[in-house]
Amino acid sequence: MSAEIISTGNELLMGLIENSNAKWLARKLTELGFEVKRITVVSDKKRDISQAFKEAIERETNVVISTGGLGPTLDDKTLEALAETLNLKIATNKEALEMIKLKCKVHGLELNQARLKMALLPVNAEPIENPSGLAPAVKIKTGKTIIYCLPGVPVEMKKIFRKKILPELTQKNKQLLFKERKAKLEGVFESELVPVLKKVREEFPDVYVKTRVVPTKGIILYCSTKGLKKEAQEKLNKVIKIVDSYVNWLSKERGRR
Amino acid sequence: MSAEIISTGNELLMGLIENSNAKWLARKLTELGFEVKRITVVSDKKRDISQAFKEAIERETNVVISTGGLGPTLDDKTLEALAETLNLKIATNKEALEMIKLKCKVHGLELNQARLKMALLPVNAEPIENPSGLAPAVKIKTGKTIIYCLPGVPVEMKKIFRKKILPELTQKNKQLLFKERKAKLEGVFESELVPVLKKVREEFPDVYVKTRVVPTKGIILYCSTKGLKKEAQEKLNKVIKIVDSYVNWLSKERGRR
Repeated sequence: MSAEIISTGNELLMGLIENSNAKWLARKLTELGFEVKRITVVSDKKRDISQAFKEAIERETNVVISTGGLGPTLDDKTLEALAETLNLKIATNKEALEMIKLKCKVHGLELNQARLKMALLPVNAEPIENPSGLAPAVKIKTGKTIIYCLPGVPVEMKKIFRKKILPELTQKNKQLLFKERKAKLEGVFESELVPVLKKVREEFPDVYVKTRVVPTKGIILYCSTKGLKKEAQEKLNKVIKIVDSYVNWLSKERGRR
Repeated sequence: MSAEIISTGNELLMGLIENSNAKWLARKLTELGFEVKRITVVSDKKRDISQAFKEAIERETNVVISTGGLGPTLDDKTLEALAETLNLKIATNKEALEMIKLKCKVHGLELNQARLKMALLPVNAEPIENPSGLAPAVKIKTGKTIIYCLPGVPVEMKKIFRKKILPELTQKNKQLLFKERKAKLEGVFESELVPVLKKVREEFPDVYVKTRVVPTKGIILYCSTKGLKKEAQEKLNKVIKIVDSYVNWLSKERGRR
């Protein structure tokens, strides 16, 4: 099962804020057994957002999650963009309108034009309640793809994901369990690891193995796989053991010279 | 002048690390007067990286900067991918080889196969010295696009950018000065700002104006523009003044009710 994340917002392209939403979602989707294939950051412009949706759909991605652009202001254009991509009209969604009305009533807010805008959804789209904000999230299916549009405010995004989307996606991917392990490798250069990494990749083709140089900390070996819990765990342990003993052997060789 | 950033690395798609490189580069490029149009995160796979380069070139982006995938390991495939995109052969670049040889000599490192790999560049590409690492960065021109491939290790990436790329890009965009201002808006809802934001956007079409809801902190008004220093500053001051006085008026109106 493949997934993509589309992050909208000029503030991301201007480097004003960290894209913490994408990192968080990538982590959650990976833990759920999805293969996150791409993260795309685009501007607030309708054309750019629409293009990003189009590309993800053309890649037949199973799940696409967007963040941002659902709010009341004029530069919140995600749903208009999505409607354009899917060649759908945009109209007031009754259910979304009720959600917004109720919130306004509870919090004593005026139901102004800007707030009514948040009930404008592509036809056939399904609103998802936003427990800590006004703008409903949106779900829509097209071909092989399910698209979820979430708000950009991290606390709102996370709550909706945990409450409404996580259970749905868990159902979809219930066979797969994601397992990972990290190990610190000392006294070795990344380039010296090439032969052993080649070996473990050949021996365990379904284990993802990667080294990362962290200045002052050395090399981090990361490996992950999907599968049944015990089996997956054992595979990762084997991989780490092979690399570890190679590193030990290397140190001894060096000592001998 | 448009720019794009391509971040390679499964660790980003798995949500293991923050894409701090992209944020940093986006900020630098914006400050240099570039419009960053897209940030794309792809896997370590040659096909995915090649596709991302292809798309950025097709969009006729002026400057494309990639990070990651230049190291000695087998999953470092950025240059192979780029060669594929540009339909170029890959070959040992003499200058790059000299850079690596010298480093190995200075640091007493063996010039092994894995390290030699880092001198394999697309033909016509230009190596850029990496002051704090082994893998040279790479520059190549194609049509309207200049592509810079930088290493993924943040300290290496930043040093190369500051020392070698920033001066080149400053030359390219020397007319433009980027200016920005932020202001905190209190006692107002985002949806109530729609009319005044519409007004300032019409009045100052070259000023980028955006509001952002920060939970517990309220609303941050952000505006930026490009132009001569004094003129740009004055424009931003005017925008903030207009929005501020609208917010004040709104509070008074509320008090009166």
